[in-house]
Amino acid sequence: MSLSTTKVVRFHQTGNASVLMIEDLPVTEPGKHEIRFVVEAIGLNRAEIMFRNGAYLEQPELPSRLGYEAAGIIDAVGKAVTDFKVGDRISTIPAFSMGRYGVYAERAIVPSSAVTRYPKHFTAQQGAAIWMQYITAYGALIYSGKLKQGQRILITAASSSVGVAAIQIAKNQGTMVIATTRGKSKKQFLLEQGADYVIQTDSEDLVSTMANITQDAGAELVFDPIGGQILSQLAEVSSKGGRIIEYGALANEPTPYPLFSALAKGLIIQGYTIFEITQNKDKLEEAKAFLLTLFNDKKIVPVIDKIFAFDQIRQAHEYMESNQQKGKIVIRV
Amino acid sequence: MSLSTTKVVRFHQTGNASVLMIEDLPVTEPGKHEIRFVVEAIGLNRAEIMFRNGAYLEQPELPSRLGYEAAGIIDAVGKAVTDFKVGDRISTIPAFSMGRYGVYAERAIVPSSAVTRYPKHFTAQQGAAIWMQYITAYGALIYSGKLKQGQRILITAASSSVGVAAIQIAKNQGTMVIATTRGKSKKQFLLEQGADYVIQTDSEDLVSTMANITQDAGAELVFDPIGGQILSQLAEVSSKGGRIIEYGALANEPTPYPLFSALAKGLIIQGYTIFEITQNKDKLEEAKAFLLTLFNDKKIVPVIDKIFAFDQIRQAHEYMESNQQKGKIVIRV
Repeated sequence: MSLSTTKVVRFHQTGNASVLMIEDLPVTEPGKHEIRFVVEAIGLNRAEIMFRNGAYLEQPELPSRLGYEAAGIIDAVGKAVTDFKVGDRISTIPAFSMGRYGVYAERAIVPSSAVTRYPKHFTAQQGAAIWMQYITAYGALIYSGKLKQGQRILITAASSSVGVAAIQIAKNQGTMVIATTRGKSKKQFLLEQGADYVIQTDSEDLVSTMANITQDAGAELVFDPIGGQILSQLAEVSSKGGRIIEYGALANEPTPYPLFSALAKGLIIQGYTIFEITQNKDKLEEAKAFLLTLFNDKKIVPVIDKIFAFDQIRQAHEYMESNQQKGKIVIRV
Repeated sequence: MSLSTTKVVRFHQTGNASVLMIEDLPVTEPGKHEIRFVVEAIGLNRAEIMFRNGAYLEQPELPSRLGYEAAGIIDAVGKAVTDFKVGDRISTIPAFSMGRYGVYAERAIVPSSAVTRYPKHFTAQQGAAIWMQYITAYGALIYSGKLKQGQRILITAASSSVGVAAIQIAKNQGTMVIATTRGKSKKQFLLEQGADYVIQTDSEDLVSTMANITQDAGAELVFDPIGGQILSQLAEVSSKGGRIIEYGALANEPTPYPLFSALAKGLIIQGYTIFEITQNKDKLEEAKAFLLTLFNDKKIVPVIDKIFAFDQIRQAHEYMESNQQKGKIVIRV
């Protein structure tokens, strides 16, 4: 890498992992409210797969950068930035346009409002593997769900990085945690993360198993990234007055709304993304304070599944799409 | 009527209004926690039409009584009842099984917990036309919706008794009230009740009209008894972070869940029935206190559309099913 260029992952068309290209782009100066940093590690998220496919909330302007999460060391700050300085060890919070600021790069620029210090005892790879998953889970479970000791929570597709973060936070709140996964290969892993029960949805019936586990009381909170046909079952396994938080559309099929269950039980079904927290300064500060306490008290440690090199970015995306991972996929830069 | 029998409306099979029969049944004594009253007026609700059709949350045990709302004078109290006495002028709150306690009768027995005094300046016909509609609207708009001055609310199918109650409460909260109705016959009536705008859904496009009215900001709260295909449009016209409260299933068709709008806007879609309030003593007391203040300050007056005689009960049901009414249908007993 010359001093005046840096390697950046971009795509010139939407599609599968093969559209990702590593390109040399000029290094630019951060704007007034931005910082530039030398990237040490990148955390991968399903949002980036969807963005690359053209199926995300934000549509890419081609050619497009991508990436929400990275950790590194600041090497330049904008004129109006007062809370960070060159040399600071920071990681990014997903509170920006991925197309404009995408952090899949060796050097990247982001708004300083989307930057934070991470616990000293975390490696850069851990620092790149915290904010997306833990803020997403915090916003749903604590901010919206107001999860309390003794309640029951159902976490579907629980082996993703957000799923694992949700298990850890829910367990720390003193709740009964029920996790779902498709195969049996991840069952032991989910139990180790703190799940009290794991339901294998390819071989066990969700509704009757939940009825057994909860003695027909159902779950006060359901945290689901799947949507589609499963929503009706989630309504069935919810408690009276329960809340279902939908945070994804993995099923990629129409989602019938369970109107009669919703009326009979007074169910709340809520669409949710991390931006509800990250785009609001006060909510974000509350989230960070809550999580930093858990990190610093060593009550929660991010789970890294596998580490890829920067030039293996396509393989890393393909690995995420294969759904084998248990926890976070990280790129070492 | 002999002293030992009373006329009661029952049905021996589910079906259209012709299944309703007026029968002489023995007068029984109230149980320990019940009161008996001489009925002066009965308020009709769509719940009773659905119950008669076998399409309500509660299934009838045939032959079945029906009816949630009546006003009258107490003529006997159970042994454990201390807060009411013979001669009290009361009306009923829907907080009981309609099949067991149905108040379509000349004398009826209900749990004392479902009984309340109504404002002295109201007639019995007004007394029978308040609790269902105003508690339903209160629970959605105030308790769940936390409707505040300056917000915008969309009230669909607004000419029903609950719709009118919602308009009145919303207007009293200082909000912008947008009401929908199918034809133009009820437009003037809804404006007179306090709606700032009325959208005629048979001739005006809901989404673009709402965009014009709210200058693209959308409604913070939507209160809808229809469900079905309209839910996707309601999501489109909701504000960021908006709440849609579904309280019925008039469309009688599958209801697609607008997952992508819900995710993008962080929408809350909530199933709701009056029982969420009436089955909880504290919530019910709060509701009554809120509403009695509005009634006693004469800020809100129930709107009675048409009064039928007791032996016209079938015609009264048919009239409700014809959807001509603007406000409450009442039976004079």
